[in-house]
Amino acid sequence: MSYTIDEIAAALGFRAEGDGTIRVDSVAEPASAAPGQLALAMKPDFAAALPQGAARAAMLWDGADWQGYGLSAAILAPRPRFAMAGLSAMMDAGQGYAPGIHPSAVIDPSAEIGADVAIGPLCVIGPGARIAAGSVLGPQVQIGWQAEIGPGGLLHAGVRIGARVRIGARFVAQPGACVGADGFSFVTPEPSGAERARASLGQEGTATAQAWARIHSLGAVSIGDDVELGANSCIDRGTVRDTRVGDGCKFDNLVQVGHNVIMGRDCLCCAQTGIAGSTVIGDHVVLGGQSGVSDNLTVGAGAVIGAASTVLSNVPAGRMMLGYPAVRMDTHVESYKGLRRLPRLFRDVADLKKAVSKLAGND
Amino acid sequence: MSYTIDEIAAALGFRAEGDGTIRVDSVAEPASAAPGQLALAMKPDFAAALPQGAARAAMLWDGADWQGYGLSAAILAPRPRFAMAGLSAMMDAGQGYAPGIHPSAVIDPSAEIGADVAIGPLCVIGPGARIAAGSVLGPQVQIGWQAEIGPGGLLHAGVRIGARVRIGARFVAQPGACVGADGFSFVTPEPSGAERARASLGQEGTATAQAWARIHSLGAVSIGDDVELGANSCIDRGTVRDTRVGDGCKFDNLVQVGHNVIMGRDCLCCAQTGIAGSTVIGDHVVLGGQSGVSDNLTVGAGAVIGAASTVLSNVPAGRMMLGYPAVRMDTHVESYKGLRRLPRLFRDVADLKKAVSKLAGND
Amino acid sequence: MSYTIDEIAAALGFRAEGDGTIRVDSVAEPASAAPGQLALAMKPDFAAALPQGAARAAMLWDGADWQGYGLSAAILAPRPRFAMAGLSAMMDAGQGYAPGIHPSAVIDPSAEIGADVAIGPLCVIGPGARIAAGSVLGPQVQIGWQAEIGPGGLLHAGVRIGARVRIGARFVAQPGACVGADGFSFVTPEPSGAERARASLGQEGTATAQAWARIHSLGAVSIGDDVELGANSCIDRGTVRDTRVGDGCKFDNLVQVGHNVIMGRDCLCCAQTGIAGSTVIGDHVVLGGQSGVSDNLTVGAGAVIGAASTVLSNVPAGRMMLGYPAVRMDTHVESYKGLRRLPRLFRDVADLKKAVSKLAGND
Repeated sequence: MSYTIDEIAAALGFRAEGDGTIRVDSVAEPASAAPGQLALAMKPDFAAALPQGAARAAMLWDGADWQGYGLSAAILAPRPRFAMAGLSAMMDAGQGYAPGIHPSAVIDPSAEIGADVAIGPLCVIGPGARIAAGSVLGPQVQIGWQAEIGPGGLLHAGVRIGARVRIGARFVAQPGACVGADGFSFVTPEPSGAERARASLGQEGTATAQAWARIHSLGAVSIGDDVELGANSCIDRGTVRDTRVGDGCKFDNLVQVGHNVIMGRDCLCCAQTGIAGSTVIGDHVVLGGQSGVSDNLTVGAGAVIGAASTVLSNVPAGRMMLGYPAVRMDTHVESYKGLRRLPRLFRDVADLKKAVSKLAGND
Repeated sequence: MSYTIDEIAAALGFRAEGDGTIRVDSVAEPASAAPGQLALAMKPDFAAALPQGAARAAMLWDGADWQGYGLSAAILAPRPRFAMAGLSAMMDAGQGYAPGIHPSAVIDPSAEIGADVAIGPLCVIGPGARIAAGSVLGPQVQIGWQAEIGPGGLLHAGVRIGARVRIGARFVAQPGACVGADGFSFVTPEPSGAERARASLGQEGTATAQAWARIHSLGAVSIGDDVELGANSCIDRGTVRDTRVGDGCKFDNLVQVGHNVIMGRDCLCCAQTGIAGSTVIGDHVVLGGQSGVSDNLTVGAGAVIGAASTVLSNVPAGRMMLGYPAVRMDTHVESYKGLRRLPRLFRDVADLKKAVSKLAGND
Repeated sequence: MSYTIDEIAAALGFRAEGDGTIRVDSVAEPASAAPGQLALAMKPDFAAALPQGAARAAMLWDGADWQGYGLSAAILAPRPRFAMAGLSAMMDAGQGYAPGIHPSAVIDPSAEIGADVAIGPLCVIGPGARIAAGSVLGPQVQIGWQAEIGPGGLLHAGVRIGARVRIGARFVAQPGACVGADGFSFVTPEPSGAERARASLGQEGTATAQAWARIHSLGAVSIGDDVELGANSCIDRGTVRDTRVGDGCKFDNLVQVGHNVIMGRDCLCCAQTGIAGSTVIGDHVVLGGQSGVSDNLTVGAGAVIGAASTVLSNVPAGRMMLGYPAVRMDTHVESYKGLRRLPRLFRDVADLKKAVSKLAGND
């Protein structure tokens, strides 16, 4: 897999300058690039290291002085970060999964396998499952009873899709991702300590001794098109209806999406994020790493939840939230500054007490 | 799988009213219910949507005016949320795992497999493992050397049970759950920076350059009856004795239970909860999502730890805890209110300083 | 597997006292030890329980009065916690994986398998993969295309190693651990709401409706010698170059290491820790459970990040950090104390206002 600079520029719709016949077979950071590699320098800070490497060509920002960096050719991109999407797709060597269906895969005769589907070694495809054309399953993937995978999916090693889950086109799932585990829903014969504590805002919490009865998850999971799910991440099935994930949502590793959650489109959930049961997330919401949203809440479209923040109440559309519990970003920053200035405040008040005592003639 | 309203009411021990011969094959939310579905409306808020759907029958709360919602029949439950446990168990279509032992499973000849055990495709059952009667293993499950699974277990795809782990009756494990990984226990030849920092409360922390030596986990994990473990959750083995989990504990997805932990019965650990090594958790403790308990602590029976809270000291029985570090819920709320009112306090003190200065004739 | 007290003492380089011919086959806690077990009591608190058990021999600290505890023999260790490393290695019965290559494993003919490598049932070894001498793979492990595992590795059930990942000697990976999933890197055609919010510190955040384009991960992961990775933990591949982990790093369960991260040597990452993309971690850094480090930061050598703390800015070498956002431990403690004393401060200021008002003749 190698390309000339002209070929890359043409494929990406950018402008090439210099010797467009230079051929590259991979990309590299400026300082470590070999002559047959395309160096990537999205901004001047990075480009400064070009002379340390041996690249003859680089992808740079629009207007970059590529000759000044000693290059023979350059691809100039108006937004180099976005250009990386197309370029990296061209250059991705992938996981090397073989085409076709490996003989060790266990495929139920009632499963429907589309054209050009690749199924890796030791996969298990359940009864009535449907895998649409062009999907690729790595080794040891499991697709449950009557589950559906849309066209062009890429399911890496050990992905598990539960019964009756429906997934749209171009789904990408990293190793160990799990769609369709049972929701976490248990109930006690009488209201539990946790239920009463929530109802009474903590005034009464002590649990009486009761065992938990399981509420089975009768719904499944419905996932739109162009969704990605990270390694060992989980999206649970719904209790009565499906848990729903809109088109274009991207989930990083170790993310938890609880039962009955409804997510809009194009949301971004960074690693170790958790969304608790029955919460509704609008379109284009961004959840920072390790952040969480409690159950039965609403997060409006375009909201951004800061890293490691915990949402305990509804969030309006477009709001930036931070902290524990998460509040408007500016409120959090103000509280935080106040907290840092507290020691001085304590001293000021102590001084004032002395001064007032003196003025009052008490000493 | 379909039932009449009378059959469902009888099975659950509730009262049916209206036409008990109506037959339903599944459940639905009020607004989307078809005529052949049983609508579920646990409270008036939900029932208000019944006219939008086509349900002829619903499960409602005791005393509900079902005829007023245009229904032909109703099942009336004194605590509808609890009724969902029995109803959902009746209606659960499950994962469709086939009975019997799939020929692709790799089962050591010394393993003991009980009556009516189902073992799915590509499972691996190690030497001396014992799987008791009626257990069901989905695809690609792995049971280690001399591990024991009690009767009536349900282990979904890709669950992994390590050597010598012992699990009681009716265990349910979601995909990718792991019992019996090694504990995380490392030691340096001399006390490490982290050890000294803890001992000195942070006065000295800098680590000298030492490599970590592994302490092997010689214990296993002992799990009681009726325990559930979520997708990709982990319970580690103990160092010298077993890590222990009491009857009836329920763990959501991506939960971590460290080595040597002892848990009482009927605890509830929501998603992404972590319990660090050697901590002892009493009966009926509830840990909210993303909460954590540090190592070598005690959490008393019936305590409730709020979502995303971090327990860094012992918790008495029945206590509600919140925040970082977790404190009594009312203490946390008071601190939090104070934090929000800080900006005004700073202004008040500034005003006081001016006033006192003026009174003192300093200006 | 049994040893005399003399044999154990000699192997560990410690001093045995009393009857060194006593034979033990396992270890136990003092109170539950049988006569054929070696009791472990690292400090007097634990040793006090020796009379409740039936141990004839124990491992104790240097100078312990073993005869006073009624023992017939003792191994005296200057730092008993460190002695556990060697002792537990001797006593570990392991997972019982069989030697040799199981016939059900699917191994590409182009893979290179070293001497004395064990490959368990239903493993998948991809084309061009190299597994060095003495490594042991449990059941259902997957090694990707051209990935390399160094000598003496131990990969437990269901571990997944992606294409082109390179791992050094004596790697230990717990079940479900995943090295080499794709990095979480997405970009919008125009700067996204989250990008603008970061750039403007939250002044403008609302996302316009844009879909996310995937940036493929062209790098792999390079891992040094003596690294351990916990159950269901993830280390993602780099975007252009490899993500890098230094010698001796130890990761607990459910840990996330993002794309492009560079870690020094001998770091310790406790359970559910997250390190976001492109962050650089120095040598001997310790991350407490559930802590996190944001992206593109630097954490200096020997720093210690407290449990559940969130690092949002660079950390100097040797610094102890705590809280959200993480600050110096002493700063955090001071702020925290101030927060607890806030209610009294509000009362003091209210009293002062009254007093000043009175002095000013306003009442």
